[in-house]
Amino acid sequence: MSKTNPGNFFEDFHVGQVIEHATPRTVTEGDRAAYGSLYPTRFAVPSSAAFAASVGLELHPVEELIGFHIAFGKTVPDVSLNAIANLGYAECRFHRPVVPGDTLSTRSEVIGLKQNSNGKSGVVYVRSTATNQRGEVAIDWARWVMVHKRVSTGSTTEGTAAPETVIPELATAVDAKNLIVPEGLDFSSYDFTAAGEPHRLADYEVGEKIDHVDGVTLTTSEHQQATRLWQNTAKVHFNVEARPDGRNLVYGGHIISLARALSFNGLANAQLIAAINAGAHTSPAFAGDTVYAWSEVLDRVDTDAPGVGALRLRLVATKGRDESMTLRGEDGKYAPGVLLDLDYWALIPA
Amino acid sequence: MSKTNPGNFFEDFHVGQVIEHATPRTVTEGDRAAYGSLYPTRFAVPSSAAFAASVGLELHPVEELIGFHIAFGKTVPDVSLNAIANLGYAECRFHRPVVPGDTLSTRSEVIGLKQNSNGKSGVVYVRSTATNQRGEVAIDWARWVMVHKRVSTGSTTEGTAAPETVIPELATAVDAKNLIVPEGLDFSSYDFTAAGEPHRLADYEVGEKIDHVDGVTLTTSEHQQATRLWQNTAKVHFNVEARPDGRNLVYGGHIISLARALSFNGLANAQLIAAINAGAHTSPAFAGDTVYAWSEVLDRVDTDAPGVGALRLRLVATKGRDESMTLRGEDGKYAPGVLLDLDYWALIPA
Amino acid sequence: MSKTNPGNFFEDFHVGQVIEHATPRTVTEGDRAAYGSLYPTRFAVPSSAAFAASVGLELHPVEELIGFHIAFGKTVPDVSLNAIANLGYAECRFHRPVVPGDTLSTRSEVIGLKQNSNGKSGVVYVRSTATNQRGEVAIDWARWVMVHKRVSTGSTTEGTAAPETVIPELATAVDAKNLIVPEGLDFSSYDFTAAGEPHRLADYEVGEKIDHVDGVTLTTSEHQQATRLWQNTAKVHFNVEARPDGRNLVYGGHIISLARALSFNGLANAQLIAAINAGAHTSPAFAGDTVYAWSEVLDRVDTDAPGVGALRLRLVATKGRDESMTLRGEDGKYAPGVLLDLDYWALIPA
Repeated sequence: MSKTNPGNFFEDFHVGQVIEHATPRTVTEGDRAAYGSLYPTRFAVPSSAAFAASVGLELHPVEELIGFHIAFGKTVPDVSLNAIANLGYAECRFHRPVVPGDTLSTRSEVIGLKQNSNGKSGVVYVRSTATNQRGEVAIDWARWVMVHKRVSTGSTTEGTAAPETVIPELATAVDAKNLIVPEGLDFSSYDFTAAGEPHRLADYEVGEKIDHVDGVTLTTSEHQQATRLWQNTAKVHFNVEARPDGRNLVYGGHIISLARALSFNGLANAQLIAAINAGAHTSPAFAGDTVYAWSEVLDRVDTDAPGVGALRLRLVATKGRDESMTLRGEDGKYAPGVLLDLDYWALIPA
Repeated sequence: MSKTNPGNFFEDFHVGQVIEHATPRTVTEGDRAAYGSLYPTRFAVPSSAAFAASVGLELHPVEELIGFHIAFGKTVPDVSLNAIANLGYAECRFHRPVVPGDTLSTRSEVIGLKQNSNGKSGVVYVRSTATNQRGEVAIDWARWVMVHKRVSTGSTTEGTAAPETVIPELATAVDAKNLIVPEGLDFSSYDFTAAGEPHRLADYEVGEKIDHVDGVTLTTSEHQQATRLWQNTAKVHFNVEARPDGRNLVYGGHIISLARALSFNGLANAQLIAAINAGAHTSPAFAGDTVYAWSEVLDRVDTDAPGVGALRLRLVATKGRDESMTLRGEDGKYAPGVLLDLDYWALIPA
Repeated sequence: MSKTNPGNFFEDFHVGQVIEHATPRTVTEGDRAAYGSLYPTRFAVPSSAAFAASVGLELHPVEELIGFHIAFGKTVPDVSLNAIANLGYAECRFHRPVVPGDTLSTRSEVIGLKQNSNGKSGVVYVRSTATNQRGEVAIDWARWVMVHKRVSTGSTTEGTAAPETVIPELATAVDAKNLIVPEGLDFSSYDFTAAGEPHRLADYEVGEKIDHVDGVTLTTSEHQQATRLWQNTAKVHFNVEARPDGRNLVYGGHIISLARALSFNGLANAQLIAAINAGAHTSPAFAGDTVYAWSEVLDRVDTDAPGVGALRLRLVATKGRDESMTLRGEDGKYAPGVLLDLDYWALIPA
């Protein structure tokens, strides 16, 4: 019997199944530096321990997306090694800041299954939970992916019956009242000059769009290093022989981090990601593409924490700059050039 | 009103103006590793905590240029986002070693202005000061850049009057008696074997030139990662769509760090940079260029610290190796291939 | 007299000579992150401080190969700067885990010499020892390299007499009873789920081969960054002008680390490298090559430590995937595509 991991196929999942993912990983100050070399991030909280302490965070958090990518990467070998497409995210919440020294482990539960009508693949819904070394929840989220059936690989000719279809109810967005503000966070003495922009919650109007202006041209080494850092093993990112076109596909999470970093220019005070409501990778990206970003304000609310508000934002990454900031064409489809459509909540001084 | 930062134009500066730059940034051991992966540095003090302790530095300093690039990077969005050229540095002193855990913030004061005769741009002189989280000065320096006037961008047709011309007096070089030796530094029991070379202060003659022999071919990913690590946002380094030639310009500081690292071979005991007297980026560099370096000894002095001398050095980076070590042609212009002409003081065992 | 290091030539070595290599280097958490961005490693012990503590290692070791590459890199300027070929390794033992904060220094003793019949080069055998800041041995190994004679460089026309030939006796493999298990290591409560695979010592049969399936395409930036991180100064890795073909040769150690990381898939529980018995870099590798790996089980033994066994493994890296896992052709020569043949001992739950 082979000792290597072939990944799970659609037939291997059943609703209620719990998967403990390998391997736990400790976050370090090295990850903060690596992240800073790969993404043009300047948000003051993860950039400066002194700034973080000044807003009540005695331990210096790393970017929320470092925790997310690590936690997510753990699920790849078990959930999406044989995926055809990553279809969506929902209900992702950041329960507490991840700080250097934290060790993250991820566990997933299968919460839904739907075989495709072609009999060759199906959609798997999982809820994943990342915990730290004290067993506290750091991040949880739901995700659904389209996965091959084993029969489609030619390794068997025997089709299997479709499982009962179960489609979980997932919220369109995390309700504002369920947002978690890190313990101790206090923006009442926030230093806007140090943070880089004067804009606070009330300065953003629902419906407002912000062109983040700057672009970054993707390189192979950089997207590979980033993806590898999260122990993401999907071979399409690292092996030019794994795709017919001989190109390395850029990990979707790389685009999320890049767009988030670019959004500093106009959203410098959207310091912390509290939740991800939804996300779609609408087009593949490759080395050589120049990525830009724009944002749309979807909602704004206060929280119970002192001086802390929350903005709901749509973050859109595009290949090439689109100053018109068009999400969809008249046909309702994503406009050409749109790479990412991410809906999230950020914490910002009220 | 746009929420993004368009950068300052020449009209936006006035003499005496103080700019507090965003965003503070904490230096970590991750920066030391990243620097070591990007530059072939082997100076024993920043390489080894044990060596640093053996010369009286209980906390392990990072390379001075890590501090410099971070401090400098902070000024880019406010001072040089609309720069045509970085014209020069002067009077840069390293006041105390930067160690992991330090958070650096930078503040600049405008100390001079001179509009160009074309009416479309001008030279801005700033003195910048980087302080740590205790408010102690870490590094300060003067710099002058040529910056567009707003009128040159076409965003307005209205020219503005030239400000009164103020050109600050800047020293040609930091006077040897003003050099700052880190507290506790003691080279009297210096381990030359561990450091890699036997040469001490007295072994270097004024006028002596040293060919550092080794070359490094630049790659896009590496110069981008380095520049991004310092939160430098100048788009010409990251975005091939930002220049008509579709090439990413290499950040001048990347060449400084590369040349300094290459200078180990012949100047292994020039452990610490005490001051930068002047610097000129004489030619642009691009991925694919192979960079070499040579040095010329400009001066040598003793200091009051035990066993510590100082060498004033000219560090020249070239595209392609120039064994003749020619700085300028007969016409007085920089020789073809010269990329950098940097004048600095280094501390070395006496 | 030139101040730069020309490296040693064959004439410069004599049996019994001891060389203290520059420069000591401190290992940090930044190195762990950099390693993780450059190699797809997921072994649970170096990945997770919590997992390491659960098997008795209170301080969190870095990958053994981080220590090896650093220790090895120190020897390059003195031993192999003028090498024609790195011929082999033997008797490499890891005496204690390297942890962040450790400073490594390397010392070599010349243990053998054999001039080649052409009179232009010779083989130098050295035994190198890396110690930490407390003077404890971390790693030691023997290595032999073919080095130019000075006469072959044209810098002299005077040949020198051949030294007496001394060929040291080196073990074909480290004897299982001489393997060193890190103090405190205890696999009796090993968490196979967290580690990623269920296979333990008894599940591996001598003679068994494992195809590790995954491949990684090499890029210039990544192999340069890795090699530079170890302060390896061999110019063929960094300078396209240093080789007639204008290509950067990939450091052999990069292939070792890559193959070791790929071997996770099938050998996830071979957590720690205890010894390297032999190693041959059988073919050069370049950016663009896609590297795969397979392993063969050579031996398996128990150790005195609780729950700890040892597997002797042949790790083979190939350019392009070879599902037949063929080491040598019928002519006894390495099969085309074989890049590395490494024989090592790994510690694994018994």
